[in-house]
Amino acid sequence: MKTYLDCIPCFLKQALEAGKMAGADEKLQKEIIDNVCALIPQFPLNSTPPEMALKIHRLIKRLTSNNDPYLKIKRESQKKALAMYPYLKEKVKKGKDSLSIALKIATIGNIIDFAINDAETVGNGLESIDQQEFGIFAYEKFKAALHTAKKILYLGDNAGETVFDRVLIEEIFPGRKIYYGVRGAPIINDALEEDAKEAGIGNYAEIISNGSDAPGTLLNFCSGEFRNVFFDADMIISKGQGNFESLSNKGYPVFFLFKVKCLPVAKQIHGKIGHLVLMAERN
Amino acid sequence: MKTYLDCIPCFLKQALEAGKMAGADEKLQKEIIDNVCALIPQFPLNSTPPEMALKIHRLIKRLTSNNDPYLKIKRESQKKALAMYPYLKEKVKKGKDSLSIALKIATIGNIIDFAINDAETVGNGLESIDQQEFGIFAYEKFKAALHTAKKILYLGDNAGETVFDRVLIEEIFPGRKIYYGVRGAPIINDALEEDAKEAGIGNYAEIISNGSDAPGTLLNFCSGEFRNVFFDADMIISKGQGNFESLSNKGYPVFFLFKVKCLPVAKQIHGKIGHLVLMAERN
Repeated sequence: MKTYLDCIPCFLKQALEAGKMAGADEKLQKEIIDNVCALIPQFPLNSTPPEMALKIHRLIKRLTSNNDPYLKIKRESQKKALAMYPYLKEKVKKGKDSLSIALKIATIGNIIDFAINDAETVGNGLESIDQQEFGIFAYEKFKAALHTAKKILYLGDNAGETVFDRVLIEEIFPGRKIYYGVRGAPIINDALEEDAKEAGIGNYAEIISNGSDAPGTLLNFCSGEFRNVFFDADMIISKGQGNFESLSNKGYPVFFLFKVKCLPVAKQIHGKIGHLVLMAERN
Repeated sequence: MKTYLDCIPCFLKQALEAGKMAGADEKLQKEIIDNVCALIPQFPLNSTPPEMALKIHRLIKRLTSNNDPYLKIKRESQKKALAMYPYLKEKVKKGKDSLSIALKIATIGNIIDFAINDAETVGNGLESIDQQEFGIFAYEKFKAALHTAKKILYLGDNAGETVFDRVLIEEIFPGRKIYYGVRGAPIINDALEEDAKEAGIGNYAEIISNGSDAPGTLLNFCSGEFRNVFFDADMIISKGQGNFESLSNKGYPVFFLFKVKCLPVAKQIHGKIGHLVLMAERN
């Protein structure tokens, strides 16, 4: 997905948030903003938003000398999500169609995104599983692809969300080889290997780092090993907007699973902010 | 009020919106963003937000050769608000305390602010008068000041909102000289003389231009005639965040009447976004 002009104010907002998270005082926060303002005119708008966000977050890490500003948030998200695990499993068990419910749970977990949402929004969202429905739901296509898939790459998104991903992975792993892709270095609150392990995903899938510190899946920044898994997979399940922004419209065998959090993405998929989405890249 | 760092992403968002309103194509919108990004490092944070917004909007007017990007929106707001007038008057008539209801109506009218809110938000807000309550309501102080005031300056904010202001002015004008201050030149959707006249305010108050194109009341940019009225008034009723940001903490005999629309203002008054506010500047 290209970068919309509407993304630019949001980049500044995110930069300021990340600066605060990194412990920058007001003077340093202003320095961050001024530096991001100097970067913006150089951004080519045909780049994807994660490419731009990558540059901005590297800048913030350098200016604040803090390589992992969201560490505390990530720990808290993981803890809260792990506490919800028995409740989520019960939801799946009680439902008529366990795959469909697990898909919904994994997608609702995508609300855990401190690049865009605050803690209150996350809490309210997680408590309303029954009230939320998919706005776009390519379920038949998903089931058909799943039926024949032997190797699946599941692209994780945020820490905490990993626990919600586990619920879906538990439904689909029997008889299949699942890889769970995580970021290779800290970026916002995105999940790393340690988060996936802590969520218990290692029992059902092989956890694999993508080797990159981008808030998405920019293949040219990923490791060769990760790319091999990516191109060798029969089916890719991609969580979150960052992965969608990186990988959409490229013809890969991807199913995108996310909650729509901003207007540019809503425009791109002809959907609405707040929609839960299961989209097939290929028709 | 000083400018918070959180205001800066919002300036960019407003600049983009104003550019679109002015009919700028995507290339020119990007040029606007790049130019605003070049301005930001020069902004002194001890300036008020309207001082910064003034510079940004002058830039947009120059780059787009459009001196009044919000003209159409203003016309529509006025039309819609005028259609609501009989309903608003009926609300006041039916209420137990007509002054209190008129204050609430005038404050709710402040939701008409296309610098921050979209049309849907405005529509929903106006339809829920009965559900909204003041978060801060210095009513006794207001009544005491009103009791002795002979000359009142009422600072208008947005087009359309003028009709809601009229409802309050009709309650307070008997036995007093009221001046209704408007901006001296187009700025966002702020009310000009023609808007105040169209709202029928001229029947109860003397409409006076402040001589400035700032989205607030920056006294150093106002005309001498306006400043004389300002300093000669026994009581000033100030509508909207822009006027609040310009005039707060300066010791003038002002009552601020607005709806809290952003986090910096919420922080400043120890309130919450969405609150209706009637605040006395002087204790």
